[in-house]
Amino acid sequence: MENLNRQWRIRCKPDAEISKENFDWVEEALPEPGEDELLVRAIYLSIDPVQRYWMSDHPTFGPPTEIGQVMPGRIWGRVVKSRSPNFAPGDLVAGLGGWQTYCLLPASEAEPVPDWPDVPLEAHTALYCMQALAAYFGLLEIGQPKAGETVVVSAAAGGVGSLVVQIARIQGCRVVAIASTAEKRAWLCNELGADAAIDYRAPDFAEQLAAQCPDGIDVYYDNVGGDILDAVLALVNPHARIACGGFISHYNETEPTPGPSNIQMIALKQARMEGFSCFEYVHRADEAFQAIRQWVSEGKMGYRAHVVQGLENAPDTLASLFHGKNTGKAVIQISSEE
Amino acid sequence: MENLNRQWRIRCKPDAEISKENFDWVEEALPEPGEDELLVRAIYLSIDPVQRYWMSDHPTFGPPTEIGQVMPGRIWGRVVKSRSPNFAPGDLVAGLGGWQTYCLLPASEAEPVPDWPDVPLEAHTALYCMQALAAYFGLLEIGQPKAGETVVVSAAAGGVGSLVVQIARIQGCRVVAIASTAEKRAWLCNELGADAAIDYRAPDFAEQLAAQCPDGIDVYYDNVGGDILDAVLALVNPHARIACGGFISHYNETEPTPGPSNIQMIALKQARMEGFSCFEYVHRADEAFQAIRQWVSEGKMGYRAHVVQGLENAPDTLASLFHGKNTGKAVIQISSEE
Repeated sequence: MENLNRQWRIRCKPDAEISKENFDWVEEALPEPGEDELLVRAIYLSIDPVQRYWMSDHPTFGPPTEIGQVMPGRIWGRVVKSRSPNFAPGDLVAGLGGWQTYCLLPASEAEPVPDWPDVPLEAHTALYCMQALAAYFGLLEIGQPKAGETVVVSAAAGGVGSLVVQIARIQGCRVVAIASTAEKRAWLCNELGADAAIDYRAPDFAEQLAAQCPDGIDVYYDNVGGDILDAVLALVNPHARIACGGFISHYNETEPTPGPSNIQMIALKQARMEGFSCFEYVHRADEAFQAIRQWVSEGKMGYRAHVVQGLENAPDTLASLFHGKNTGKAVIQISSEE
Repeated sequence: MENLNRQWRIRCKPDAEISKENFDWVEEALPEPGEDELLVRAIYLSIDPVQRYWMSDHPTFGPPTEIGQVMPGRIWGRVVKSRSPNFAPGDLVAGLGGWQTYCLLPASEAEPVPDWPDVPLEAHTALYCMQALAAYFGLLEIGQPKAGETVVVSAAAGGVGSLVVQIARIQGCRVVAIASTAEKRAWLCNELGADAAIDYRAPDFAEQLAAQCPDGIDVYYDNVGGDILDAVLALVNPHARIACGGFISHYNETEPTPGPSNIQMIALKQARMEGFSCFEYVHRADEAFQAIRQWVSEGKMGYRAHVVQGLENAPDTLASLFHGKNTGKAVIQISSEE
């Protein structure tokens, strides 16, 4: 065990694009756990677009942030010291440990990582995580897809989208995935079972989308907002459902940008557009994780983790998510699993 | 009884603003009812913004229209000739008779007007009509207002909005009404019980709206779309509901206009925005009408009809709805009630 804790603390809030300039690298002595606290060595750190949003001035879900604090983020790690009867050194736990190599977690907030011998820790970060709750409940509860319907997924190769694509396919839907690179689109179609994948940067994107949705769009799982939403709205069927997980195309905005000109389709098609937050489904996490575990065991569902080595790369990795650099779930590996 | 039937037929579909130029005045011989048909003399004709939308190229609710046909619209009238055992001359019926002085209605599509001695026929046009279904089910089923919540209503002095304001007030909500003239706003506050009324044309409209919604907005009943929707989105509370009855600010558009730049609030606030059509609630009309009748009998609910005399004024009256000229439900009186 080292003597130092390394951290990324918030130096300033981003005006537009997030970058390393928004953080300070700090090294300080390892803290001692108080009563009912754990000292945890972080192994994996989840890097998600929503973390950019937590640094806006008025976040409405997730932890609010202040200048000087350790950047929040979910980690999976091993207990190093425990002052709780419920945990022992060596236990694997998950929790909001933040962007640092070691963290203190109140025992009440440390989640034991289930001891599933067939599931590597990396898989936990991609399949049994907050993003999985967003994918599972956002698609099934808000989107309510029915077999035979057409489901469109934006940011489909990301940590959330890649799960949504697979769950929609398992429901018997036609799945049209939207992603930025040929490699991602091949992965989505050949490995995750999307029926089609489209590049939203193509000049004829709207036409391609229409061609791949010959029966219109019944469900749209929206991670992006912006022009893609507009193109989808033009094609929605009566009583379509748009599940809004987050509009990452807006997160870096400095000025208001126009919304979808096809917004009137909500009224004309009696469609429903509804936001949701995975934080509101935490109490039902078991339901989602058991279903996903079953699908994985049946060979119906897989994952990919985009693992970047070293805490020092956390800011650049977060910034890169807004340029579509990751395929699958983005995590930082901070230390070895053992 | 006259020998002639006078009609407004569709000459051409409107490019932007609707006007008399879009219609032909036609006079033809009175038709004879076939088996199980009724000849009905129209007394009142409902004039509603949605009729403008029926003349667009791809209407998605209500009757589609073709060049040359009689303009569709709901009428209340008296049976003149009946070839159905279920109706006799003199019976009051309602149905989609169209913009004409006489119409043929299949007996199966003619709705008997309930014989409520305390309810004048004019009240049926304002309180027991399709707009009442839109108000009742749109607010209660889609908006789901709870006592103490803040409900905002656009086009609040119109046929739908004026009912929504009252039903929301009856639910125990704070009601903020949006309307264009001082006379309308006084009516909304002094007679219909709105807690505040705001002019959307005011330069500081968004600030006024914020001032009148100190606890944020829980429900927005949207008849309009456009900039008002954007201002509302900026103020929505978590889990707010936006019931989209129709975006009349878009009906006259010739070019796409930008949508609400605050659309990301749907995701950030886990809000729900949902369209609906009164046509989907026709099978539950009794439920709404009985509730409204009860409220009227208890003195909790009133109405105003904006009655224009003479079928010849139907096109101008429809056009005027898009300039906020009516207070209450707009109807054309085509013939005397007796």
